[in-house]
Amino acid sequence: MAHLLSTSCSMKVSPSEKLSSKCWNIGSTKYPMSFTQQTSKSAFKSLVHQRNNTQKLTVVRATTVPLNQETKAESGTSSFENNGNTSGRKRVMVIGGDGYCGWATALHLSKKNYDVCIVDNLVRRLFDHQLGLDSLTPIASIQNRIRRWQGLTGKTIDLHVGDICDFEFLAETFKSFEPDTVVHFGEQRSAPYSMIDRSRAVYTQQNNVIGTINVLFAIKEFSEECHLVKLGTMGEYGTPNIDIEEGFITITHNGRTDTLPYPKQASSFYHLSKVHDSHNIAFTCKAWGIRATDLNQGVVYGVMTEETAMHEELCNRFDYDAVFGTALNRFCVQAAVGHPLTVYGKGGQTRGYLDIRDTVQCVELAIANPAKLGEFRVFNQFTEQYSVRDLAALVTKAGEKLGLNVETISVPNPRVEAEEHYYNAKHTKLAELGLKPHLLSDSLLDSVLNFAVQYKDRVDTKQIMPSVSWKKIGVKPQTLRA
Amino acid sequence: MAHLLSTSCSMKVSPSEKLSSKCWNIGSTKYPMSFTQQTSKSAFKSLVHQRNNTQKLTVVRATTVPLNQETKAESGTSSFENNGNTSGRKRVMVIGGDGYCGWATALHLSKKNYDVCIVDNLVRRLFDHQLGLDSLTPIASIQNRIRRWQGLTGKTIDLHVGDICDFEFLAETFKSFEPDTVVHFGEQRSAPYSMIDRSRAVYTQQNNVIGTINVLFAIKEFSEECHLVKLGTMGEYGTPNIDIEEGFITITHNGRTDTLPYPKQASSFYHLSKVHDSHNIAFTCKAWGIRATDLNQGVVYGVMTEETAMHEELCNRFDYDAVFGTALNRFCVQAAVGHPLTVYGKGGQTRGYLDIRDTVQCVELAIANPAKLGEFRVFNQFTEQYSVRDLAALVTKAGEKLGLNVETISVPNPRVEAEEHYYNAKHTKLAELGLKPHLLSDSLLDSVLNFAVQYKDRVDTKQIMPSVSWKKIGVKPQTLRA
Repeated sequence: MAHLLSTSCSMKVSPSEKLSSKCWNIGSTKYPMSFTQQTSKSAFKSLVHQRNNTQKLTVVRATTVPLNQETKAESGTSSFENNGNTSGRKRVMVIGGDGYCGWATALHLSKKNYDVCIVDNLVRRLFDHQLGLDSLTPIASIQNRIRRWQGLTGKTIDLHVGDICDFEFLAETFKSFEPDTVVHFGEQRSAPYSMIDRSRAVYTQQNNVIGTINVLFAIKEFSEECHLVKLGTMGEYGTPNIDIEEGFITITHNGRTDTLPYPKQASSFYHLSKVHDSHNIAFTCKAWGIRATDLNQGVVYGVMTEETAMHEELCNRFDYDAVFGTALNRFCVQAAVGHPLTVYGKGGQTRGYLDIRDTVQCVELAIANPAKLGEFRVFNQFTEQYSVRDLAALVTKAGEKLGLNVETISVPNPRVEAEEHYYNAKHTKLAELGLKPHLLSDSLLDSVLNFAVQYKDRVDTKQIMPSVSWKKIGVKPQTLRA
Repeated sequence: MAHLLSTSCSMKVSPSEKLSSKCWNIGSTKYPMSFTQQTSKSAFKSLVHQRNNTQKLTVVRATTVPLNQETKAESGTSSFENNGNTSGRKRVMVIGGDGYCGWATALHLSKKNYDVCIVDNLVRRLFDHQLGLDSLTPIASIQNRIRRWQGLTGKTIDLHVGDICDFEFLAETFKSFEPDTVVHFGEQRSAPYSMIDRSRAVYTQQNNVIGTINVLFAIKEFSEECHLVKLGTMGEYGTPNIDIEEGFITITHNGRTDTLPYPKQASSFYHLSKVHDSHNIAFTCKAWGIRATDLNQGVVYGVMTEETAMHEELCNRFDYDAVFGTALNRFCVQAAVGHPLTVYGKGGQTRGYLDIRDTVQCVELAIANPAKLGEFRVFNQFTEQYSVRDLAALVTKAGEKLGLNVETISVPNPRVEAEEHYYNAKHTKLAELGLKPHLLSDSLLDSVLNFAVQYKDRVDTKQIMPSVSWKKIGVKPQTLRA
C-alpha cells in the first residue's frame, strides 16, 4: 500500500538561536560543511551536519523549501540545529500539530514553556485539495505559522514534516528530539472521510493503526519513560443503553466481579480505528510498561484559543464542510450564510461536546499529571452533552439575536446510528485534575457566529450538504463532486 | 507498505470435466482460442476465454505453472474453466485453504458436496523458509494436493493463488467464483510471529485487518447475501475474572441493562488483530446488513482428519516449532523425541482446546446454519478447557504407556500473561447446532504421539525452545537463529 506521502523532511527553524559558522545559514545559499545526498527509497535529500555543541550527528532530511527572507530580518539568522534540552523543560512532540486541535495545542504548550516539536505529514491539507474543500479561515503555511509564533514570543517550535507510518522517519525524529511526552493527534480523524470508498476506509485504518503502532515501538526503543497522550474519541463507546464510564467498567456476572475495558461499539471505519488503537496501546502498557493516556474526546467546537488569536498568521483552521466539519461549527456557518441548519434524521443523536480551549487545557493537564509506567488511563474529554436538535435550537436563538434568519431542516441521515437513545457519559477525571471548562454560553455562540459572519464570503455552500453515505459506500475510488 | 506477495494467479484445475474443443487442453501445449496478455500491475498473464455454456466471460489470471503429465493420464484432460453453479450446491470460498485448519476444512466441505474454491497467497510456506522451520509432516504442493483429491474423489477444487490485500485480485476471484459462503482463515495466525519484531507486528495487523476489510467490501459489492464465517480466537477475551460468554454480555449497571460486546483483552499483536476484525465485521453487519459468524477458536490439536488421512499427498501440515506450533501438538512431538515438555512459567495458563476434526465440523455447522442478514454471531469454538500443566501431565502419562521417557521443565515465559487465573468460558452454541465433539482421550493422545514418533527423524529440536520474547521485541528486523 503506497504511502500517500513518501517524502519526509525534518527542519528545525529556530531564528532566535545564533548559528555557528559550521552550520547552514538561511540568509545565504551556503550549504553546511558536509552535505551528502543519501539515496533512499523516498525522494528527499539528507543533510548530514555536525551539531556544534554536543557533536551529536543529527541526520536532518529535508526537501528544499524556499524560506522567505522576512524571517531572517525579523529574527536574525535561522538555525537548523536543535540545541537539545537547554532548559530541563518537558519536551513534547505533537504529532499532527498542523491540524485543528494539534495546532492550537502546540501553541498552548509552547506558551506554557514546554519545548515543543510538531510532526506532521500535512496530508490534511492535501485532502482539502483532493476533495475541493477549504477552511473557512485562511490558514498560513506551517512554516510561516511557526516563524510568526517565534517572532511574537521568541519561542522555538521544531518542525518535522513526514509520515509516522514511515518508521525510519519517525525513528530519526525521536532520536533528534528526545520527547518526554508524545501528544498524538496524527490520524485521519473524519468519520465521513473514512466512509467515502474502500480505499479511504483502508487508508484510514492502516494509517491510524500502523502509525500508532510505530509510535509505540518508537517509545519502547528510544524513550521508554515517554508518556503517550493519545487522542481517542467518545465515539468508541457508541450509544449503549447504560451509563458510559471512563474507559473501564466493573461488572458483576454470575457471582464474580472484574473491572474490564468498557465494551466498544464504533460506527465508522474512522471510529473503529480508534478502538483498534486503544486495544493496541492497552496491550503495550501491560506488556512493555508504557505509560499512556487515552483522551476519548467529544465533538469539538469553536476556533479561537488565546494563542491562535494573537495574530492572523496563527489563525486556526475552521472546517464547516460535511466531511471534516463538526456539528456546532457547521451550524454556526450555516446560520451565518442563511443556509438551513442540517439536522441529520430526527436529531436526537446525543454526544459529548467541548470548546477547543478545553481541548488544549485537557491535553496540558494530562501532560502535567502523567500516567504511571505501565498504566493505561482513559479520560472522557468533553464538558457537556447535547443532542443535535438542542444545538440547532441554541444556534437559532443566538443567530436571531444577531438579526440572522435561521431555519432548520431534517436531512436524510447519511450515517447508520441511533437517532433517539439514552446517553449518560461520565467525565469527572479531567475535572479532578483541575479542568476549568468553558461551557457553551450565549457569548461563545455569539463569538463563533460573528466569526463565521466575518468570513462568510469564503463559504462554499456546495460543501455543506452531506454526499457520503454509510450504506452506499462502494469499492470504486470516488472523486467527490461538491 | 509493499505487499509481501504481489503476484496473483487464479487457476481452476478440474481434471474430471470434459474440455470442449474451444478450451485449453493440458495434455498438449495448445492454448485456448483467445489468449491475451493483459498488462496489469502484478506480473501475471491473463487468460481471457469464452466459457462454452453460459458464454460468461471469465478472466482467469495465472502465472505459468508446469502441471505434471501424471494428472492427465489419471483423470483425463484438465479444464481451465469453471462450470459455474452446475449443481445448486453451496459455493464455499475457503480463504487460507492451504493452511493447517484451512486445508482440512476445504477437503471436509468438498467431501460434504459443497463446491469449494481455495484462495491463498501461500505466504505461510514462505514463513517456513524465512524462519528456517518445517512441518513435521512432508506436505505436497497445493496444486498436487488438489489434483490428488480430484483423482481420488472426482471432486473439483478451484485454486486462486493471490493476496486478499490486493483488492483487484480479490474482486476477480469473487466475480469468478460467486461464493455463497466465505470461510476466512487467511490471516497471519501466530502470536509469537507477530511479536518477533516491529515489521512483523505491523505486517500481522495490516495483513489481517486490511485483508478482512477487503473481504467485507467484496461481499458488499459482489455477493451481498454471502455468509462470512470468520476465524476469530478465544484469545480475544484474555483471562477475565468472570465467566466468558459467547461474544456478548448482558450488563446491569447503575440500574440500567444492556447486552454489549464482551470486553476484549488480547495479549499479542496477532490476537489484537482478531479483535480489530471482530469490531470491523460487527460494524458492517449493522451498517450494511452483512451476515457473519465469528468463530472464536481455542487451541487446535491433532493432525488427522478423515479426508487428509486418505492419501499421503493429502496429509496436513503439523507444526511443532515455538512460533507456529500449538501447545498439545508441541508436547507430543517433544515427548516423541525425548525433549522435555516446555511448560511456560507456572503452567497455570488455561485455555479452550479442540481437535482439528472438530474445527472442520464446527465450520460446516456454521455454514449449514447461516447467520441472518445483518446478524453478527459469535461462537466460542472449543470443546474442553485445560491448563498447560494438565496437558503436560496427560502427555507424560500417554507417553509412558508407549514406553517413552517423558520429562517436563518450566521455561521462562516468553509471553506476558497470567500464569494462574480463573477461566470459565461458555461454549454451548455449536453444541446446540449439533457438534459431536472428539474429546481429548487416551486414544487420541496415543495416535498423535505415534504419529510424532513416525516422523521423529524430521524433527529439528533447535526449533522447540522459544526465541521470541514479548518484552524484548524491538524495531530492528530480526532473522531468527534456530
